[in-house]
Amino acid sequence: MNDIKLMNRAADNIRILAASMVEKAKSGHPGGAMGGADFVNVLFSEFLIYDPENPLWEGRDRFFLDPGHMSPMLYSVLALAGKFTIEELMQFRQWGSATPGHPEVNFQRGIENSSGPLGQGHTYAVGAAIAAKFLQARLGKEVMNQTIYAYISDGGIQEEISQGSGRVAGTLGLDNLIMFYDANNIQLSTTVEEVDSENVAMKYEAWGWKVLTIDGNDVAQIRQALAEAIAEDKRPTLIIGHTIMGKGARGADDASYENKVSTHGQPLSAAGASIEETIRNLGGDPSNPFVIFPEVAQLYANRKEELKTISAEKKAVKEAWAKMHPDLAVKMENWFAGKLPAIDWAAIEQKANQSTRAASAKVLGVLAENVENMICASADLSNSDKTDGFLKKTHALKKGDFSGAFFQAGVAELTMACICIGMTLHGGVIAACGTFFVFSDYMKPALRMAALMQLPVKFIWTHDAFRVGEDGPTHQPIEQEAQVRLLEKVKNHKGKNAMLVLRPADVFETTVAWKMAMENKSTPTGLIFSRQNIMDLPAATDRYQEALGAEKGAYIVNEDTNADVTLVASGSEVSTLVDGAALLRKEGIKVRIVSVPSEGLFRSQSKEYQDSVIAPGSKLFGLTAGLSVNLEGLVGSNGKVWGMNSFGYSAPYKVLDEKLGFNAENVYRQVKELLAE
Amino acid sequence: MNDIKLMNRAADNIRILAASMVEKAKSGHPGGAMGGADFVNVLFSEFLIYDPENPLWEGRDRFFLDPGHMSPMLYSVLALAGKFTIEELMQFRQWGSATPGHPEVNFQRGIENSSGPLGQGHTYAVGAAIAAKFLQARLGKEVMNQTIYAYISDGGIQEEISQGSGRVAGTLGLDNLIMFYDANNIQLSTTVEEVDSENVAMKYEAWGWKVLTIDGNDVAQIRQALAEAIAEDKRPTLIIGHTIMGKGARGADDASYENKVSTHGQPLSAAGASIEETIRNLGGDPSNPFVIFPEVAQLYANRKEELKTISAEKKAVKEAWAKMHPDLAVKMENWFAGKLPAIDWAAIEQKANQSTRAASAKVLGVLAENVENMICASADLSNSDKTDGFLKKTHALKKGDFSGAFFQAGVAELTMACICIGMTLHGGVIAACGTFFVFSDYMKPALRMAALMQLPVKFIWTHDAFRVGEDGPTHQPIEQEAQVRLLEKVKNHKGKNAMLVLRPADVFETTVAWKMAMENKSTPTGLIFSRQNIMDLPAATDRYQEALGAEKGAYIVNEDTNADVTLVASGSEVSTLVDGAALLRKEGIKVRIVSVPSEGLFRSQSKEYQDSVIAPGSKLFGLTAGLSVNLEGLVGSNGKVWGMNSFGYSAPYKVLDEKLGFNAENVYRQVKELLAE
Repeated sequence: MNDIKLMNRAADNIRILAASMVEKAKSGHPGGAMGGADFVNVLFSEFLIYDPENPLWEGRDRFFLDPGHMSPMLYSVLALAGKFTIEELMQFRQWGSATPGHPEVNFQRGIENSSGPLGQGHTYAVGAAIAAKFLQARLGKEVMNQTIYAYISDGGIQEEISQGSGRVAGTLGLDNLIMFYDANNIQLSTTVEEVDSENVAMKYEAWGWKVLTIDGNDVAQIRQALAEAIAEDKRPTLIIGHTIMGKGARGADDASYENKVSTHGQPLSAAGASIEETIRNLGGDPSNPFVIFPEVAQLYANRKEELKTISAEKKAVKEAWAKMHPDLAVKMENWFAGKLPAIDWAAIEQKANQSTRAASAKVLGVLAENVENMICASADLSNSDKTDGFLKKTHALKKGDFSGAFFQAGVAELTMACICIGMTLHGGVIAACGTFFVFSDYMKPALRMAALMQLPVKFIWTHDAFRVGEDGPTHQPIEQEAQVRLLEKVKNHKGKNAMLVLRPADVFETTVAWKMAMENKSTPTGLIFSRQNIMDLPAATDRYQEALGAEKGAYIVNEDTNADVTLVASGSEVSTLVDGAALLRKEGIKVRIVSVPSEGLFRSQSKEYQDSVIAPGSKLFGLTAGLSVNLEGLVGSNGKVWGMNSFGYSAPYKVLDEKLGFNAENVYRQVKELLAE
Repeated sequence: MNDIKLMNRAADNIRILAASMVEKAKSGHPGGAMGGADFVNVLFSEFLIYDPENPLWEGRDRFFLDPGHMSPMLYSVLALAGKFTIEELMQFRQWGSATPGHPEVNFQRGIENSSGPLGQGHTYAVGAAIAAKFLQARLGKEVMNQTIYAYISDGGIQEEISQGSGRVAGTLGLDNLIMFYDANNIQLSTTVEEVDSENVAMKYEAWGWKVLTIDGNDVAQIRQALAEAIAEDKRPTLIIGHTIMGKGARGADDASYENKVSTHGQPLSAAGASIEETIRNLGGDPSNPFVIFPEVAQLYANRKEELKTISAEKKAVKEAWAKMHPDLAVKMENWFAGKLPAIDWAAIEQKANQSTRAASAKVLGVLAENVENMICASADLSNSDKTDGFLKKTHALKKGDFSGAFFQAGVAELTMACICIGMTLHGGVIAACGTFFVFSDYMKPALRMAALMQLPVKFIWTHDAFRVGEDGPTHQPIEQEAQVRLLEKVKNHKGKNAMLVLRPADVFETTVAWKMAMENKSTPTGLIFSRQNIMDLPAATDRYQEALGAEKGAYIVNEDTNADVTLVASGSEVSTLVDGAALLRKEGIKVRIVSVPSEGLFRSQSKEYQDSVIAPGSKLFGLTAGLSVNLEGLVGSNGKVWGMNSFGYSAPYKVLDEKLGFNAENVYRQVKELLAE
């Protein structure tokens, strides 16, 4: 069998497996997988560099799949590569199987990202390519010379986020990024031309990419394009591969079922095709389709040997490099192990009575100087979200120069979030990104994916409430805190809160919140900061030490013995409670003040601790500049919450404080009413 | 004064007003407004067609501002046009003023959209242009020949959504759309070139736009570009206007403060410039800057006279047209008045025991046949979200042919939502759009804007819970229902729930939900439908009549006298409660079953009604396939909720039902435990 024939045979093997998996599961997407088989076969059998014996090797090439519904293709090619068994393929989409409907990140199995929501996957690849460049600039090309591959479909090309990832990859000149666009002109409900007449090649060229257009089912053309793309040393490359949806699909009468919308999202048989004829047409045995052909097995066995040789060479290079640069070798190990350098958090000197965004800037300055593998980003708001505390200690990444550690993301919040996810998936770096809290709305799809993948991205959100003031309702978060905290109520697949969300009450709690964020290596963390200055909370002895109570999600800030009422809030409202408490105390009313930076975390504490902070049966008053529901779970039926339950208004924030009842006088009034009940 | 000088004088007038407004408010964005003044001056004094005496004239040109932070420019030019007073400009960004920090939709005042979150505004323009084409195809060019203008800034160009709006406008050949891109190379925190090296002209050409590049501060070039754009009859036009940020700004020493990042987002004085020198440099009087120059007032007075003449001509044409087409004239009036045709909802025959998405398709078919001015869209899922119930009765909009009523949005959920907003802002049409519920995440920024603007867009979401099944956690909504219902907890500026969210329990409730959605003309409505079939709820007499109880947000489906326990749910979980109740009743336990399609609406009913459905003190059990928090507010401390509080899993949904406890047996078990407490 000649080389091309063998390669086509392998691709047909992938097609048979993919179509059979969907058929057996009675659910899934066969058509795209059958069209894309040729590309992944060439990539995995000839180009993708990884260590078959060490899947976590930090210098491996990465492959990011954007259209997660093409999972049968990915599982099948990974089965050829020995990462999945035939039995596992047969369990496609079943309870507890290793082959869920959409791929779920599993580095050991060669799955570099979870995917499903189109557009995000290829943006993770952009993030990974940035991380690779960043690490290469610090560790050297000898050990950090990997190529990042992405695979995108028509849907991903259409998703809005492609604007962000296309722009960023072009602007930063990510020549280590190669994206294959599986252009089959079929989407779920129509042909592509019915919804999109854009010139994709021209668009990517406008973004500064090199673009190659090929027959995506032709082995020789795929090979040549990949070789050209690897040789490119200034730009990312887009390979537009025109492919045939459902390649090889046949009806019972042997009529072609290629290029049909109907084969996109259901088993071939449900689309009216014949799985048997299709398998026969592809050179398989319909009675026994779950087979790797011997010659294909041999092809991948040969590749495995090549990869072992390559890996051995790379390992030798790395060892020599480590001898030359023992300091770098230690860094590399620590970075990829997720090890934090020691930070003397208590020693961070916070200026009194600042906004928590300013306090965050202070911490970010310390992190910029001490955490060499941290990348901080902002969506064009660094001077306002105060990520410039980080930026001032470094400089921005730019084309040809990745010595900086700040990523200027431009106005593209979702892209920024996905790029941070991609950097984190790549490994070796710690990613943080900032914008206004109201724009967390744009990031929600990425927050969810970060939470699902258990990635410790740090999300920095400032301008936390109506005290944004004059910018008015479009810029004033109302429901956002409740919204993002929903991810504290969702458990991830390890049974932990899927996200940690912290809204610190003053500058010291901000230091503690950052400490918690950096120490949280198993879920994303959201940090919600104020625009306006906040009076520091009172301290019995050392406010920083007392603010460490935040590590339990909620803690008593101060209290009178035998308190008549417990006042509860997070963020800047805690200091308003302190002011209100002063008025109450003048009348001899005894109060306890509780700061709750994270109800989700607080609920994870022992019942004993929870009861020690919020005593069962005590009168409770909650104050929140977000929806009342933020605190209603805590305050329960035994108290009341003063919240912000409408869209905001444009006016100076001190005017809003008065108009909306967020001041000491109203706390006093409300608590008096509560106690009188 | 010659013509060009006068036009420049008028633009300087806008610059002075804009800079002075920000200065007086001590807050806002002067630089961009000063750069864009020339364009809006030419547009408003020479091109934009509207009736000065009838701001709601349906045939008016529309102007959509994308960068809402450039509000001082908009308010100032509208002040020249007589829509705002000088006193109102002086109240910029103050409590209760007509000139909030970001523009808030006000057709009477010439403000066609609220803006602030970048990228959305120009997408509304695309929607408006589609609506105009749609209406033109039905009513004729005589009365529907308006041009839609959009104004976009560097940030909007970067926002991901520009990919969606650029693609759609090009693909549909929206030659009635003209967008001015204010390219000043300055964004909030950096110059543009630091974050973006893309070739914007080439990108829009790739999307199928005509692109003109001009000096955006040059009157003659602006005029010529607008004339060319208006003459274009196949494509939308992008006018790239290179402008000078902070044009005319000066320091105390008369040094230039043009082209500075610092003038983007703060008063000129805060940026180190001199407001006095700037005003002087622009030909104004620093001691009295809030003035419309007499010659500028005359320019706009002349334009007003021209517009009156034009409007009179258009009115005559309309009257002649109405005589020729009395039927169309009635339609036009009804459509723009938001009048619904009579729909015999009770007569819609639903097939028994279907999924609610299928029931929705049935209703959509009726709407397609009866509501001639309705446009339904899908983000490439029409065959799955079942908006194809609508599509089958019409055909898709396409370039050169807007006789259809279905908008194939492609894979671009946020774009689709914003386009529906834009269609609604335009007026005359009813817009609905569908996708999977999990992708409501992508639409959140638009949901918020639709809610803020009180626009009755209908959002159709199917695949409402983990019963998506095999597609797994990326496609299974968990926190989405709680998330979208947060907008039921936010009050809009009229004091109403900002959104109506309905999750019907069976096919009959689906008909009722659609009835409610169509009759809701004051807020957006979200409709959440099931993928899987649901057994119809039991009815005493006529299930449709009983399902009308949904109009109160919650109602009793059935009950035993003196019920021991009340079972509460929405959507498909209600039928699971019915099954569980059967097991409980076998043991003589008396139950009441309540369906709650909308807690927010239910909470708006009289206390008496609420108590009649959920009796105070009664034992309560809630079942929700979303987060428990969905029902905890209703169930309170007197009961318990069985919810889905983790990410989902890939498996057939009936397996998931068993594994996750969403079946009759578990309802039985949980309620027994509750009653034993």
